[in-house]
Amino acid sequence: MLKKIYHLGYAVENVEKASEFYRVHFGAETVEPETVEDQGIKATMFHVGESMIELVEPTRPDSPVGKFIAKRGEGFHHVAFEVEDIERSLAELKESGVELIDETPRIGAGGARMAFVHPKEAFGVLTELVELRGKGE
Amino acid sequence: MLKKIYHLGYAVENVEKASEFYRVHFGAETVEPETVEDQGIKATMFHVGESMIELVEPTRPDSPVGKFIAKRGEGFHHVAFEVEDIERSLAELKESGVELIDETPRIGAGGARMAFVHPKEAFGVLTELVELRGKGE
Repeated sequence: MLKKIYHLGYAVENVEKASEFYRVHFGAETVEPETVEDQGIKATMFHVGESMIELVEPTRPDSPVGKFIAKRGEGFHHVAFEVEDIERSLAELKESGVELIDETPRIGAGGARMAFVHPKEAFGVLTELVELRGKGE
Repeated sequence: MLKKIYHLGYAVENVEKASEFYRVHFGAETVEPETVEDQGIKATMFHVGESMIELVEPTRPDSPVGKFIAKRGEGFHHVAFEVEDIERSLAELKESGVELIDETPRIGAGGARMAFVHPKEAFGVLTELVELRGKGE
């Protein structure tokens, strides 16, 4: 069911500083961060092989990423796996009793359909499924 | 410098249970876990695209992964990126003042040469660099 690691999300306090770190020290081809106000984040991504690293800074402390950093500090936030058919995947997971945060897909960055599995199911790892079909990727 | 995500390491309390979860619910082709007594771990891996997920259970509470779970609970433990030339990467990082856990490579699973960057440098993410050259991968 899992085609590839689509991205890793890192929660950071300062996205420009984190982006600069990966650009200078690891040759990452970084781009300007974008603010997504309804999610309370300022984020950017860079490619590593077939995957991406997403650097996410909270724009307010009461956003999900803001609360995450307040509780756990900076660090790994979530992993996103590409799946072929997100509706089928969610139906199968629900059918077999796996607790989901999103029982139906919502629209994420770039218009992709995505959903989160509850981290308590996935051994403490916040796990996103994303379907890229129709995006030409 | 970063060629791909080589693996993600997840710290789990029961590697068989975690492996079964990914086999049953995500179609992961899992293999029998192996115990590496000097590291105090029982671990297995499965492929996702060009990367792998490594599930690591501590065999004793005073091992690094045992201490990690005692402090943070189960969850994401580290990310490993493939690099072309680990000695050059480490030299460049050290030269530019990035704190390393391993200033010279050590031998990891499968004979690959690997080293850890200090997580405080990488915004809270324990980051491993691994060179696979000569392994035919």
